[in-house]
Amino acid sequence: MERPAERRITQHLAVIGLGLIGGSLARALRAADAVGHISGYDIDPEQRRVALELGVVDSAPDSAIAAVQGADLVVLAVPVMETAAALAALQSALGADAVMTDVGSTKCSVIEAVAATLGEVPANYVPGHPIAGTEKSGVAASFDSLFRGRRVILTPHARMSQQAGQRVQAMWEAVGAQVEHMPPAHHDEILAATSHLPHVLAYALVDMLAQMESEQELFAYAAGGFRDFTRITSSSPKMWLDITRANRAALVPLIDNYVDALNHLRDAIRDDDQQQVLKVFTHARDAREQYLERVEQSLSSRPTTTS
Amino acid sequence: MERPAERRITQHLAVIGLGLIGGSLARALRAADAVGHISGYDIDPEQRRVALELGVVDSAPDSAIAAVQGADLVVLAVPVMETAAALAALQSALGADAVMTDVGSTKCSVIEAVAATLGEVPANYVPGHPIAGTEKSGVAASFDSLFRGRRVILTPHARMSQQAGQRVQAMWEAVGAQVEHMPPAHHDEILAATSHLPHVLAYALVDMLAQMESEQELFAYAAGGFRDFTRITSSSPKMWLDITRANRAALVPLIDNYVDALNHLRDAIRDDDQQQVLKVFTHARDAREQYLERVEQSLSSRPTTTS
Repeated sequence: MERPAERRITQHLAVIGLGLIGGSLARALRAADAVGHISGYDIDPEQRRVALELGVVDSAPDSAIAAVQGADLVVLAVPVMETAAALAALQSALGADAVMTDVGSTKCSVIEAVAATLGEVPANYVPGHPIAGTEKSGVAASFDSLFRGRRVILTPHARMSQQAGQRVQAMWEAVGAQVEHMPPAHHDEILAATSHLPHVLAYALVDMLAQMESEQELFAYAAGGFRDFTRITSSSPKMWLDITRANRAALVPLIDNYVDALNHLRDAIRDDDQQQVLKVFTHARDAREQYLERVEQSLSSRPTTTS
Repeated sequence: MERPAERRITQHLAVIGLGLIGGSLARALRAADAVGHISGYDIDPEQRRVALELGVVDSAPDSAIAAVQGADLVVLAVPVMETAAALAALQSALGADAVMTDVGSTKCSVIEAVAATLGEVPANYVPGHPIAGTEKSGVAASFDSLFRGRRVILTPHARMSQQAGQRVQAMWEAVGAQVEHMPPAHHDEILAATSHLPHVLAYALVDMLAQMESEQELFAYAAGGFRDFTRITSSSPKMWLDITRANRAALVPLIDNYVDALNHLRDAIRDDDQQQVLKVFTHARDAREQYLERVEQSLSSRPTTTS
């Protein structure tokens, strides 16, 4: 379905950071015929080469400045702690009317980095976070349906232009996502609980088991439950170092709460307090079943790609 | 492929406990044409009814005694803490030559329960554990390929007859599993690390999140990583209460080790000790990648169903 050029979301999209998210967004906007030219930049020449070879981007110059030249929409898709460096590198070439957004998993730290680098958060800057991903990294792992039926959280700031916000919202809706808004600190608390904490717990477990004497044997007898439980530990260590650094204010107290809860459960198991153990297990099972029902509902009513 | 009756593993199999494992084993042995008659018993009349209706068993009498009458092979597939009660209920009807095995996730506790109930562990009793399952419960969730390419651990005891061990091994090989042997205490330590501990960690997390004020909102923003990480909390709370009770000697010290490891990682995140955090994440990622490679290898070389 060809769409008239003037009805596209963007005539020239620049994607800074050609990884799973940046690559998938470029592919998805192309698949929705919502974009004209796509230029991309990654600090890693190999990602640029692969992105160009796979047709994820139309051009992949060897500087961020060249990539954003002439772009009307710029998406920062770099590890969150790289935000300041990425912005500093492209700032001089940014058009006055260009809308900019990011896809960072933490929002307070990104907004702070933007303010620190540019003096203040520009009216055309729309902080965002698509709740989507896989444990894979790199542009070769990107695919155009990654955001379909997923939620994207935008965390508007006081100076943000309504028009810029609407443009970024339209971009995500064009790739099938559902956009919601909340304050950055609230976003960071929610993601600490449902994403950052589980990653830390899984990394700690696999690291511990890998240090045990019987490591080789242990993993040989691990079954499907273990495989799923630890899938998130295949995620990029560098990206997750960044996320835990950027969101440690919300994350560290949650780890402490978790240790308390786990110690409580440990005591109940040790003391053979069957009622308490069964209560925790049942409560958890019921909560997850309810969560799955809600996910099913949301998937069955998920938006299709619209203009 | 019809096989002559005398080449079958069993002329009359009795399955006590018609759940995911018992039901899948009955289906798998039937699919391999390795069994004559299958009788089954479950304490829950509904499971008996469904097992009969789905053709998982040929008969489903309303007592364990009736189910094992005339059986040459008896499989106990009940929650581990039900072992003694199940044995006591069928003991009087057990044929002198009948071989008996179980599928319990803990082995020391099952062997103790058998010895306590029958006076000693009979020569024809072969303790076993298939490392296979899903988060589903009940006979309706059973399927005949559950054990294909999976490992089954047998934990022989001093009085065990070699012939009985070979018969149970042949049963598992007939459904495509790979049989290995180890001492029961060693089995329990390994499973505590790779299965029981992850279940406890996941249950504790979901229970904690479900108690938070923002529960509804939290789960609404949970993504695929969370879904996989918490899949095991959909498992039967009663079955997992039993497993944690039966294996708490191995499990509780491991929880303590885990809390130490997690606190160490928490300190590193809090102190922004990037080197340490990255070391843990990278070590875990690498260990899981190696584990996946081994799983792939073992799947590609997995045994086909043989006579």
